[in-house]
Amino acid sequence: MPMKDIAAEQIPDIADILAAEQRIRPMIRTTPILADTQFNKILGCELWLKCENLQRTGSFKFRGASNAIALLDENGINGDVATHSSGNHGAALALAASNHNRGSWIVMPDNSVKAKVEAVRRNGGEIVFCQPFQQDREKGLAGLVAKGCVPIPPYDHADIICGQGTAVIELSKQCRGLDIILTPVGGGGLISGSAIGAKALIPGVTVIGAEPEGAADTAMSLRWGKRVDQFPVDTIADGLRAMVGVLNFKIIRDKVNKVITVSDVEIVDAMALVWQHFRMLIEPSSATVIAAILASPEDFSGSRVGAIISGGNVDLERLPF
Amino acid sequence: MPMKDIAAEQIPDIADILAAEQRIRPMIRTTPILADTQFNKILGCELWLKCENLQRTGSFKFRGASNAIALLDENGINGDVATHSSGNHGAALALAASNHNRGSWIVMPDNSVKAKVEAVRRNGGEIVFCQPFQQDREKGLAGLVAKGCVPIPPYDHADIICGQGTAVIELSKQCRGLDIILTPVGGGGLISGSAIGAKALIPGVTVIGAEPEGAADTAMSLRWGKRVDQFPVDTIADGLRAMVGVLNFKIIRDKVNKVITVSDVEIVDAMALVWQHFRMLIEPSSATVIAAILASPEDFSGSRVGAIISGGNVDLERLPF
Repeated sequence: MPMKDIAAEQIPDIADILAAEQRIRPMIRTTPILADTQFNKILGCELWLKCENLQRTGSFKFRGASNAIALLDENGINGDVATHSSGNHGAALALAASNHNRGSWIVMPDNSVKAKVEAVRRNGGEIVFCQPFQQDREKGLAGLVAKGCVPIPPYDHADIICGQGTAVIELSKQCRGLDIILTPVGGGGLISGSAIGAKALIPGVTVIGAEPEGAADTAMSLRWGKRVDQFPVDTIADGLRAMVGVLNFKIIRDKVNKVITVSDVEIVDAMALVWQHFRMLIEPSSATVIAAILASPEDFSGSRVGAIISGGNVDLERLPF
Repeated sequence: MPMKDIAAEQIPDIADILAAEQRIRPMIRTTPILADTQFNKILGCELWLKCENLQRTGSFKFRGASNAIALLDENGINGDVATHSSGNHGAALALAASNHNRGSWIVMPDNSVKAKVEAVRRNGGEIVFCQPFQQDREKGLAGLVAKGCVPIPPYDHADIICGQGTAVIELSKQCRGLDIILTPVGGGGLISGSAIGAKALIPGVTVIGAEPEGAADTAMSLRWGKRVDQFPVDTIADGLRAMVGVLNFKIIRDKVNKVITVSDVEIVDAMALVWQHFRMLIEPSSATVIAAILASPEDFSGSRVGAIISGGNVDLERLPF
């Protein structure tokens, strides 16, 4: 099972991320950078948005899934892939598998929102519904693995971290001289890959994470000096409800300068601001980065900030503003 | 009054558009291009979207307004600017004026949607409300002109046409070897500028317009060989309800190969498809280009198509899908 091999638990370095970037480049979109002088005046810094909401399948997750599956090919591991997901990783894995002529099986809670179910199907994934509890999700996945599927975890794996780190490689080329890299923090795949990439490629850069107050397990883990794996999760940012991964936390502790927490009210306000200034509908998880700048302006004042907008998979029937 | 001078009524050439591109470059965003292989399979052609929905103020209109106001500066014409608009031109003019340290006065019908009123105010425009009839709008504007404001029309003017034509200059550099340029048709500012630019810069290119059936005055004008200035307008595509302009129609007759009409149902379906495949919320006017490809696939089959997505100013409280 490749997902439990030793390499998967080793901290990747910049060479691994650069190799991932080469590997997935034919499959992914080089996402655009947007900036707005008027918005910068409100924020008090120079902000560049790296628009992973415009990535294929609507989130950065497609980078990690594409890297993990391409590596299965390289390592001669055949078979369908599987995961459990109520969100962006499922759709990303389905499309990445389809691009490599593999089947994909996504265990989804039977209360998943319609838009996300449709996204998985549209991208060629087979759905196995389960009851909406962690143990049922894991049982569903175990059943698929027993049938020969290769499990692809959402964040706590070196290949996934390397794939997610490729966004910052592009960003560092598209936008020179950044002082700060800012990303959302959920399971930690994006920020850990970004931190390895940024610290290697951008001299003197500061890496900051943005986390919802209602899923602030990473901020708490940093404060306590050890990984917290239980937290009473309550946030609108559905993409950030996961507990930080084991490998991810090791990297975050070592390379991330700070994690700023923001409230759901601040997140919704930030979504509305991005809609007003960029006409992009970003998901609440993504809006944490804007909320963090507004909540803690002293950390960003006058700096050149590159923020990763992680996804745009909003359920249009349930807009929070 | 610069808006009635002779130059304003002359058909511009590629040199005028290239000059406009240089002139407005510091103010505008070079908007990104997006493509999706999966979506291309549905369409049967290779499509590149030029994302003017991500332009400042959420539409290409900011290009024309920026060019017209920069030319006032160059020609030593001082004073505030004014227009009547219920939509994108008003917000675009407000921001363009603000960038040039001018005031702007926008006559808006008192039934304008809240989001558009807020967009004008956010961009620094002063609003003069009027009753929602053409004569009241024109009377409101005449009052402002009498007080010394310089009127900036939305499309029927050489400086506006040149500004709108700059999007295709960028597109032709971002994406080589296009066979077809495809844009929405309303008053005709975008398609006339695009046609002049495309025919000069892209060898052998075909220029196609997309127009709602419920505002098909341009298609009818082409069929009749003369400009129609009355049409029973009934379409969801609020940005395309205007009658084609005089100067615009001269250019369209000369340089546009075809105008394809699409129904409102086809427009709404196309909006949903773009949301699914790109996670961009585009306004109904913009979706006409996608609808045109689906309605008339034989015109696009196997071709490399560059389509201008004209705007993203959707009222989120009134989504049609």
